[in-house]
Amino acid sequence: MEKIKIIAFDADDTLWVNEPLFQHTERRFCEMLEDFLPHHTISQELLKIEIQNLKDYGYGTKSFMLSMIETAINVSGKAIGVELIEKIIALGKEQLNAPVEILAGIPEVLDQLQAQYKLIVATKGDLLEQEKKLKRSGLAHYFHHVEIVSEKNEEEYRRIIQHLDIASENFLMIGNSLKSDVVPVLNIGGYGFHVPYHTTWEYEKIDIKIENPRFKRLENITETLEHIVSL
Amino acid sequence: MEKIKIIAFDADDTLWVNEPLFQHTERRFCEMLEDFLPHHTISQELLKIEIQNLKDYGYGTKSFMLSMIETAINVSGKAIGVELIEKIIALGKEQLNAPVEILAGIPEVLDQLQAQYKLIVATKGDLLEQEKKLKRSGLAHYFHHVEIVSEKNEEEYRRIIQHLDIASENFLMIGNSLKSDVVPVLNIGGYGFHVPYHTTWEYEKIDIKIENPRFKRLENITETLEHIVSL
Repeated sequence: MEKIKIIAFDADDTLWVNEPLFQHTERRFCEMLEDFLPHHTISQELLKIEIQNLKDYGYGTKSFMLSMIETAINVSGKAIGVELIEKIIALGKEQLNAPVEILAGIPEVLDQLQAQYKLIVATKGDLLEQEKKLKRSGLAHYFHHVEIVSEKNEEEYRRIIQHLDIASENFLMIGNSLKSDVVPVLNIGGYGFHVPYHTTWEYEKIDIKIENPRFKRLENITETLEHIVSL
Repeated sequence: MEKIKIIAFDADDTLWVNEPLFQHTERRFCEMLEDFLPHHTISQELLKIEIQNLKDYGYGTKSFMLSMIETAINVSGKAIGVELIEKIIALGKEQLNAPVEILAGIPEVLDQLQAQYKLIVATKGDLLEQEKKLKRSGLAHYFHHVEIVSEKNEEEYRRIIQHLDIASENFLMIGNSLKSDVVPVLNIGGYGFHVPYHTTWEYEKIDIKIENPRFKRLENITETLEHIVSL
């Protein structure tokens, strides 16, 4: 019987609050443009442009800033002035410097798990942004190292596991996104715990029912401690 | 006597052309604004804003795009329309998708070195952008893995060397920037080969004379092959 040796944690909305920051910025962005279109139409257009730009920009706040600028120009029919562009840049910088809010139970769970397992962070997004958040979170000392990838897919998880020099049955990934944290890990033979967060970015949502003995859905991060014993 | 086990290559302007792409974009950016100020004044303002934004944005083309937008608004006294912002975004996307031009001698040198040494890439900048360039370069198979860092300083090189499980005397870094590729590596006890490129970003320029037995200045990358034998 193989057992878990390394536990990887997703960062955004698993270790700390993230999506609500984007939503807050997006609401303020929609308010700036409400003379042109209703909020939900602007949000739809923004999501469309964000997804179009993913291949060029990847994830993170800078990408979000550039997509907001493009969206503002589009939805206004170029009727806005550059003052509004300045405001979007200020919104983005504010988000980049927002305090890191650690999710409930995280330090206690990490503290218990680190005695028995090697812990790593596996996150996608912007390198500098994620490094700064980890530093500011005060959680960095729990983790052996950090894997920041441009996309969380089977290929990247295979690379991470190979790099860690373990078998996939020794690897457990914990995160809030079924699409990015759980499904690709299960597909390559690892374990996946899903800890849902109360809100998820549209692009990360998938409609899927998982029947897999290496999968568990937890109500909160603290349940990790009881479920890991049964693996 | 210890000897070199791992050779790390910088990427931008060491493996492939980079700074000339930024300079080309910057020239076209200055042309767009030449009704307001002469090119060199715009360039100075852009550099100032880029350096101010480094702590928030880090390196890479997306950061450059956001700093160009901010500069355009500033130097024009907000007198530009959003059409010009659209053009800046188009310039940036063009740069992100520019073909990767490998520097002379690189494939031959990598081909010879890989037989005797473990080769890695150590680069700073934007994660997705650097990964895409490495993929498109066709050079990825020469390298054991890639270390993308947010800043090339002593702390990061120490982390890389520790991660590689070698002593610093077994580590050689090759790159075009004395400031980022050579000085911090020499300072922690590694070897540094400087292969100057014909042009350097203002921010990377340092005025320094290095007297260190672990340092070599090469005229071109091919000289690596003869100099490494004498280490």
